[in-house]
Amino acid sequence: MKLVIAIVHDEDAGNLIEDLTNNNYRITKLATTGGFLRAGNTTLLVGVEDEEVDKVIGIIKNNCESRKEIATSPAPVSGTTGVFIPYPIEVTVGGATVFVVDVEKYVKL
Amino acid sequence: MKLVIAIVHDEDAGNLIEDLTNNNYRITKLATTGGFLRAGNTTLLVGVEDEEVDKVIGIIKNNCESRKEIATSPAPVSGTTGVFIPYPIEVTVGGATVFVVDVEKYVKL
Amino acid sequence: MKLVIAIVHDEDAGNLIEDLTNNNYRITKLATTGGFLRAGNTTLLVGVEDEEVDKVIGIIKNNCESRKEIATSPAPVSGTTGVFIPYPIEVTVGGATVFVVDVEKYVKL
Ligand code: NI
Ligand code: NI
Ligand code: NI
Repeated sequence: MKLVIAIVHDEDAGNLIEDLTNNNYRITKLATTGGFLRAGNTTLLVGVEDEEVDKVIGIIKNNCESRKEIATSPAPVSGTTGVFIPYPIEVTVGGATVFVVDVEKYVKL
Repeated sequence: MKLVIAIVHDEDAGNLIEDLTNNNYRITKLATTGGFLRAGNTTLLVGVEDEEVDKVIGIIKNNCESRKEIATSPAPVSGTTGVFIPYPIEVTVGGATVFVVDVEKYVKL
Repeated sequence: MKLVIAIVHDEDAGNLIEDLTNNNYRITKLATTGGFLRAGNTTLLVGVEDEEVDKVIGIIKNNCESRKEIATSPAPVSGTTGVFIPYPIEVTVGGATVFVVDVEKYVKL
């Protein structure tokens, strides 16, 4: 048995939890925040059989991997003169950190 | 030294913390929720000497083990006709998941 | 790779997070409370290369070690007669508990 500790972005957490639950993994969601400038993280604990660790990491990857998305450029601050033409900008979203730790004893009461 | 990570139901957490504290274990309570449909879990961290792991698991078992309780059947929704006779129903409460992880280094500052 | 789990007092957490971040460690802050009479703890997770564990513990020690501070004695409850002369009292603040756990697999997605 291994304990998978996954730190993911809040906006990916819902999809990840749904996907893990649909695959019959039982997860525990800890309320978390990142450090300075990195608010908005969720930490999940998942108890996993040794041979399923890679599958679980795959599910985390599918839902949380760092990726580029196209967003619309923010409007200029009011008071700026001239015509504002919105343009697409590329932003990086997602990303996850995963620690796998050995579990010496697992008990379900 | 081992780290005991116990995920218990909120309604059992108070008694468990009191019992562990009375036995001189120092616990840390993480704010947690379960996944979908499983809100209301509390995660506790307990640093324990190797030879006391089973005693701590016993204390968790005493306070949190899954068990049957008799509840009164819920009243019917208003508007239902006929006489309502409450009857006892059996519900399962409690339950805990415990992971024991080896601690390579422990420091008290 | 090791996972450092540090349980520190809330009032030291800000300085510690700033210091760790300035040293390029990425930390995850869990919302926590202690057990009875020990509210106000913060738990931090820090993923650390094996050879940097002692440096991280040093940073935690610098910011969180249990120490004596001089506080002014509290004023007596109103209604007490006589002249109140404040005097300095020594209080213990800070303190931290650190668990270091081996990480079998570490993935950054
Ligand atoms: Ni990120
Ligand atoms: Ni349960
Ligand atoms: Ni303390």
